[in-house]
Formats: sequence, structure tokens, C-alpha cells
Amino acid sequence: MKALRFTGKELALDEVEKPSQNDESLVRVVLSGICNTDLEIVRGYAGFEGTIGHEFVGIVETSPDAPALVGKRVVGEINVGCGRCDLCLAGDSRHCFERTVLGIKGRDGAHAEFLTLPSRNLITVPDDVSNTAAVFAEPLAAAYGISEQVKLGRDTKAAVIGDGKLGILCAICAALDSDNVCLVGKHESKLAIAEKQGIEGILLDDKSSNLNKTFDVVIEASGSESGFATALDLVKPRGKIVLKSTFQGKAVWEAWRVVVDEITVIGSRCGRMAPALELLQEMKVRVDDLIDEEFSLANGVKAVGYAGRKGTLKVLLRP
Amino acid sequence: MKALRFTGKELALDEVEKPSQNDESLVRVVLSGICNTDLEIVRGYAGFEGTIGHEFVGIVETSPDAPALVGKRVVGEINVGCGRCDLCLAGDSRHCFERTVLGIKGRDGAHAEFLTLPSRNLITVPDDVSNTAAVFAEPLAAAYGISEQVKLGRDTKAAVIGDGKLGILCAICAALDSDNVCLVGKHESKLAIAEKQGIEGILLDDKSSNLNKTFDVVIEASGSESGFATALDLVKPRGKIVLKSTFQGKAVWEAWRVVVDEITVIGSRCGRMAPALELLQEMKVRVDDLIDEEFSLANGVKAVGYAGRKGTLKVLLRP
Repeated sequence: MKALRFTGKELALDEVEKPSQNDESLVRVVLSGICNTDLEIVRGYAGFEGTIGHEFVGIVETSPDAPALVGKRVVGEINVGCGRCDLCLAGDSRHCFERTVLGIKGRDGAHAEFLTLPSRNLITVPDDVSNTAAVFAEPLAAAYGISEQVKLGRDTKAAVIGDGKLGILCAICAALDSDNVCLVGKHESKLAIAEKQGIEGILLDDKSSNLNKTFDVVIEASGSESGFATALDLVKPRGKIVLKSTFQGKAVWEAWRVVVDEITVIGSRCGRMAPALELLQEMKVRVDDLIDEEFSLANGVKAVGYAGRKGTLKVLLRP
Repeated sequence: MKALRFTGKELALDEVEKPSQNDESLVRVVLSGICNTDLEIVRGYAGFEGTIGHEFVGIVETSPDAPALVGKRVVGEINVGCGRCDLCLAGDSRHCFERTVLGIKGRDGAHAEFLTLPSRNLITVPDDVSNTAAVFAEPLAAAYGISEQVKLGRDTKAAVIGDGKLGILCAICAALDSDNVCLVGKHESKLAIAEKQGIEGILLDDKSSNLNKTFDVVIEASGSESGFATALDLVKPRGKIVLKSTFQGKAVWEAWRVVVDEITVIGSRCGRMAPALELLQEMKVRVDDLIDEEFSLANGVKAVGYAGRKGTLKVLLRP
């Protein structure tokens, strides 16, 4: 089968064997999405080698332990725990020390014709959710997961930093709970996507300095080091910063400001898929405007190059 | 009167006028304590000029609005808010944007024969709390304030990083709530102080790496940049790091680890004085072992030099 693989040095579309994991379900990928994490991996920042990609929708071909899944359209929870440690037994395999992560850590990913995952990681997609919507389940889960970590009230003043695809999803999710959400970014065209959904857009370096120390909650989803400094500018004393960007390497921060203003910084990675599918099914979150371009998997290397250009929204791959 | 003043370039014992603030109480300082923040100021990191010092116990000499305070032994809340803004009106003058802070920001401090503070900032010291205990009220409040931000249960596994005076106080306070507190530091003699109070001491670079990712809560009170990296090593996924150190300047951190392990980082500065005085009165916290040396205010410059030597505990000044 075709698979988009990173060797540690370069990305290539390889012809590899169809995966076989006797104890896992085999999924034929219908559509996959390119995430910024894929770009980080291709830059060599994450130490991963193998098939990249972790956002997908597919059809179950075979399943050793869940025959009812065969033929079903599914998305997948990307973390696979060992199933034996305290964390896994407590239901938190997302933080299992021995976990593998689809296309990110110790496990081939979704930019391929087929992938395997344990049946317990697969969630059936409702019929009325299209493939182009379902492929957003993973990043939407990550964005919506914030609501399980930080409760926003209708009056909570929240800012999301970063008008990329993750930032826009975070803003849309925050706006489900709060009437006071704005998206802070550098691209008018992308702020406009959120504005279409009723979220105020604020162009950075414009009127943003008037907003210093006025937000109860700031969600940092810019993927850049400067985003955290902006978050520190915007957040109120005793406010909360949700840190969503996973750019690699060491960053610089003014730790003393966190102490003096008694800020709480909350790291946030993955979320649960089921609530994300519900949001898509109930049309509470519209993702159509977030799609930038679709490529065939055969053009995967080109697609990743395209996705890496500044200001590009979601790029999809179709095997 | 004598006052230990920093000019922005150097520290000197000056003869200055006795302070007079018509709307504030005048306090004759009986004893003051040298804090690491004083050392930061003298290194020029905080941009403060004037009389340094913010830990004190004193006797009220005059008070325009609270005559009952005159003659009383007091300690003081060091943040003075404007009294008019939303934060002050909500009772949080510690974060007032216009606040002055005793010996730290816009207000002469406590290493002097006299100081002034608004009457509302003064708290009477119970008779059975000695001066050498009461002078610890401010740092103890800062340490105990953590308990209002992060609830520790009896089984919560907590580590405090830094065996300086603040770290030891934080460990003692944490041990009031949890039976699983240890102090992580570099000095056996200082770890021994906490051990005397029933707190396990762990010498860094010894068995500490076995403890990686095992603590629910890590309190970073080392005052050094490396302390945060150690905290990230020790804390469990989804655990909490309380950040107590206010070293100035920009630090380096691996933000992605906060995101991947979904850590919560909580900045913590000041606490309330009243509960700290109660702890001292009820002998729940013993501070005698934390006193390193006492100098006369006249030898204040020498005392600050002494306090700045590595491994020194609390240095007191007596006017």
C-alpha cells in the first residue's frame, strides 16, 4: 500500500506492506488531515520515524475482537496505552508512560491506505456526519477538551491567540460556553472565518495593547513562542492561560510574571472523540471553512509542503 | 532615622527623615527579615530605589484613623492598593494595577527605624508570638497561601524544590495537609531542618531521578531557573506545579512538556497574614531553626552581603 513516511531525514511516499496487527482492527483510510504536528515531525523535531498522520476517517476492514465494527465508518483515539499500568487501569491511557501514538510515537499513522488501531480506540461516525467533517474529529476533540479543564461561563472574557486551524477551532468551542470570546491573530482573512461564526477577531499589533490584562482566560494556540508572551500580556491577574501549542525545543518565558500576577497555566493536549463527533453531528461546529485544499495521497509530499506554507488552513489527503 | 537604601546602583545605610504619611500609621520597626527579593533588588533586577525590606514586626507609634492600634505590636500586609479600582473594591488589592509594595515597588520599606502603612494593612500580633517568630509572618503567609490555591489531601504526594528558607516553610505548610511531603534540595544541613519536623529530605542528584513523574504536586521554591526543569521531571502527568520563585529576567522552559503531560502551573506570590499568625500562635509551624544570624540595622549592608552567601538561612535586622 502507499504510505507517507518520514525516515528521520526526509519525507517520501513509499510502497509498504499493508499493516497487520493480529490484536488490532484494520482500517481503510478514506480521508486524513495534515496537522501542524505532522509538520513538526517532518522538521525532525519529534524524533518520530514512520508513517505520519493522526487525523483520519476510515472504514473498518477486519477486527479480531469487534466483528460488529467491520464495515463501519470510524475515527480513532490516537493514544494507545499499555492497558496494564495504573494510568491505563484508571482510564487515562492518554498519559500512559508506555503509550504509542498514531503517527507520532512508536506507531505508523494515518497518511496511508490502511492503518491499525485497537478496537477500543475506534468510534463509529454517525451517518449524517460527512467524511470532510469527521476528519476534523481529532483536532476538534483537542479544542473542545479545553472545556473539561477550564470552565467558561457565559460572561467569562476569553481570548484565543492564533488564527490557524487549531486556534479557530478553539475559539469556536470556547464560544459554545462564553458570549465573550475573541480570536487574536495576524491574518484578516482567517479572523474572518471566526467572525462568520460570530466571534470577534482582533488583529495583533492593532488595538490589541488596549486589551492588556483584561481577559479571564487566554488560550494560546498560535504554535509560536511569542504566543505565550502575548498571552501573558492579555491575561488578568489571577487569570488562566491554556497552553495548546506543542512547538518543540526550549522556549523563553518570563516566569516571574506568572508568579507576580499569580497566573495559572494549563497544558492541554488531546480531548475525547465522542463529544467532538456530537458537536459535528449537531452542527454546533462548522468546519467547512477550515478546509484549504485536498490532495491525493499520491501527492502527499507536495501536500505537506503546501500545508507548511504560512497561513495555510487544513489540507486533506485522500488515498 | 537610619534606613537601608538602594540607590539603583548601591546599597547604603543612610540617615533620612522619619517618614510621615498623614493618612497612614507610623510603625517603629522592632525586627525585620532579609528576603531573597531584597537580594534581587540589590542586584538591580527589580527596578526599585529606596528603603528595602518588607518582612517586619513593629510597634504602632501614631495612627490617624485607628487610635486603638497605637502601642500595639503589628505585622503588615505589604501590598497597598489604590482602594478605588475594581480589584481593590473586590478585596484583592494584592493585584491592584496601581499598588505600591513595601520595600519592593513605589514605597519605602522595613529595613529602617520607622515605616508607614495604611492602618488596614496592619495586623496585631498575639502576645504569645515572639518577635523572632512574628517577623516570619510575611514569608509564612506566602508559603501557607499555596494551600488556598492547591488543595492537598493527606495522601497527596507533594515535593518542594529548594531547601532555602522559603522552601522549608513551604514544605512545613504542605505537611500540615499532606502526610506525603518531601523536600528536595542540595544541602544536607538544610534538609535536616525539615527532617526535624518530620519531612523527608531528598538530596538532588542522589536518588531523585527514581522519583521522576511520581508527584501529584511540586512546589518550586528554589529561586533558580533549573528548579522549574526539576519540577517538570518530578511531576506526574496531569499534576500541578506551584511556582513560587520570583527570580527576574527571562528563563528557558520546555513548554511542550507542559502541554504533552497536561501539567497545570500555578503562580503563587503573597498570602494572608492572619492565618500565618495563627499558625505561629498555635505552634503548628516552628521557625527558630530558620534563623541564621541577627545583625544591627547599623550593620545592614554587611548583613545583606552575609544573607547573599549561598546556603544562608534567614538573616534578621534589629534597628
